[in-house]
Amino acid sequence: MGHHPTGERDAVETAQNVETRHSAPPVLPKAGYSGYVASLLADAIAAQAQAYTPYSHYPVGAALLTRDGQIYTGCNIENAAYPLTICAERVAVFRAVADGQRDFVALAVVTVNGGSPCGSCRQVLREFNAGDLPVFIGTPAGQYRQTTLAELLPDSFGPENLPGTVHS
Amino acid sequence: MGHHPTGERDAVETAQNVETRHSAPPVLPKAGYSGYVASLLADAIAAQAQAYTPYSHYPVGAALLTRDGQIYTGCNIENAAYPLTICAERVAVFRAVADGQRDFVALAVVTVNGGSPCGSCRQVLREFNAGDLPVFIGTPAGQYRQTTLAELLPDSFGPENLPGTVHS
Amino acid sequence: MGHHPTGERDAVETAQNVETRHSAPPVLPKAGYSGYVASLLADAIAAQAQAYTPYSHYPVGAALLTRDGQIYTGCNIENAAYPLTICAERVAVFRAVADGQRDFVALAVVTVNGGSPCGSCRQVLREFNAGDLPVFIGTPAGQYRQTTLAELLPDSFGPENLPGTVHS
Amino acid sequence: MGHHPTGERDAVETAQNVETRHSAPPVLPKAGYSGYVASLLADAIAAQAQAYTPYSHYPVGAALLTRDGQIYTGCNIENAAYPLTICAERVAVFRAVADGQRDFVALAVVTVNGGSPCGSCRQVLREFNAGDLPVFIGTPAGQYRQTTLAELLPDSFGPENLPGTVHS
Repeated sequence: MGHHPTGERDAVETAQNVETRHSAPPVLPKAGYSGYVASLLADAIAAQAQAYTPYSHYPVGAALLTRDGQIYTGCNIENAAYPLTICAERVAVFRAVADGQRDFVALAVVTVNGGSPCGSCRQVLREFNAGDLPVFIGTPAGQYRQTTLAELLPDSFGPENLPGTVHS
Repeated sequence: MGHHPTGERDAVETAQNVETRHSAPPVLPKAGYSGYVASLLADAIAAQAQAYTPYSHYPVGAALLTRDGQIYTGCNIENAAYPLTICAERVAVFRAVADGQRDFVALAVVTVNGGSPCGSCRQVLREFNAGDLPVFIGTPAGQYRQTTLAELLPDSFGPENLPGTVHS
Repeated sequence: MGHHPTGERDAVETAQNVETRHSAPPVLPKAGYSGYVASLLADAIAAQAQAYTPYSHYPVGAALLTRDGQIYTGCNIENAAYPLTICAERVAVFRAVADGQRDFVALAVVTVNGGSPCGSCRQVLREFNAGDLPVFIGTPAGQYRQTTLAELLPDSFGPENLPGTVHS
Repeated sequence: MGHHPTGERDAVETAQNVETRHSAPPVLPKAGYSGYVASLLADAIAAQAQAYTPYSHYPVGAALLTRDGQIYTGCNIENAAYPLTICAERVAVFRAVADGQRDFVALAVVTVNGGSPCGSCRQVLREFNAGDLPVFIGTPAGQYRQTTLAELLPDSFGPENLPGTVHS
């Protein structure tokens, strides 16, 4: 798509090799999660099987890791009235928040062709994360690239932009 | 709200008395669910506590019962970019579908003032239900009224309106 | 769709005959608009030609009449990320509001098969209309049925449900 | 907001001085539009006055320039059911597309505090623009910064990601 400012984000790796390669991960922001990328991607692939996509035939799976180690998955769920469709990434976020979780440490997304999260999903993630969230975008074959929310949604609009908001 | 065509839908009951009153329920479409209304409303009230509502301060809880007896709850989750907000009812539906469920038999919704589901939530429910879904709209104090999806979204747009769609 | 509570809403008329038939219209809420239904439907049909529908191939046109006699049209505009799609009815409302209009007296919607407005569009209309808005749902061939917003979105959620809101 | 990869995008200028300063504009991607930035920002400021924001009290105005020199403006339009809210940028895009326009050459957005377009608006713009669209984000006082759609939505999901789509 030609918007990658750094070659690093175009890097394609094999999920199966993640544990080895990431034994000294230069880009992972948190220590202690070695091997979690392969696990998250596998969960996203499993979630993809639940997608309800009679209109696009483009199933997506997502898996969201919380600070305390829980994983919440999601799939896209379409609607004959297209605007009511929801994406896999948002389903994962909503399931987590509905379960009392608001602190996310990594997201994996899987589509047949490695498509990125849409702008709306980036915005929903932004509500709960200032931008350092690692995002792994992959395919069922196990290839993926790594980025962050801030790279996907730079110069973002967020809660701090609404004057006078009282956060609960 | 003034749009109630029948007095029946304005009926306000006390959830605590539901089991007794509904021992011979004239309006419940399914046998065998005696007492489930009180239970669903209680689950919706519990879910309301997870709502993320820093902008509206209007928390909503929902609970969705599936054919096989599972209950999926949801709360509203807001966003500084208001269009990205999601309602409690949809979170409940999305959690259910992401878990492989598409056959719903009842929905309970709870708000401080008995507000109805918005049109978008009605449309999302419509994707998976032709209209006979019982909907219970209540308050944390235990009062509720009963309606159905078809009553809330008459003359609806649905999957059958999109020509050539191949459902998976 | 089987949810029509009254046979009146199933009535199918020919737009070309509207002016005559409506010389003494029993269901039109406003005097002075004789012939406006045929005109609105024609505008909706014209708007349908602007639809951007590479994904659904289901073009929709809408035309919204304001109190002061202006007509605002809309078409559906889709997006590869399906949730970003917008419906024709909402485009018509948004164009009107962006032009300073908030008082609507009739809506016409045209699709190939007479599909109804989705729940989201009903909700957007509800923000600016308590429910008496006449809605004409037709086809390019000139057939249509007549209903109202209150019939399409009974027991609605609206501005009055949000406590403490200060309307500008 | 801290996500600006280049200091260039933090540049704040005064709209009143734009014509002079941009007589030899180093960052404007199109020749021949000298002075159009001030004009677009002024149109966005005017559109902001039409905003319907009883819930957020955060009015936004937008102005979209098409290839053939037309300007389409938009404002945000809120809804008691928050997810039905629409942003100013999208209203501008929808008005343009409904008028037969799909080729956009610049966007101006104005908010009280220079807030950026949300992720959803970036996605809607992406449907019609590969990424080189100049975006001017300003305030009513006339300050603005300049970026592009590709900078705001890098590694985007777009029409080319949906296999088998036939574009009309």
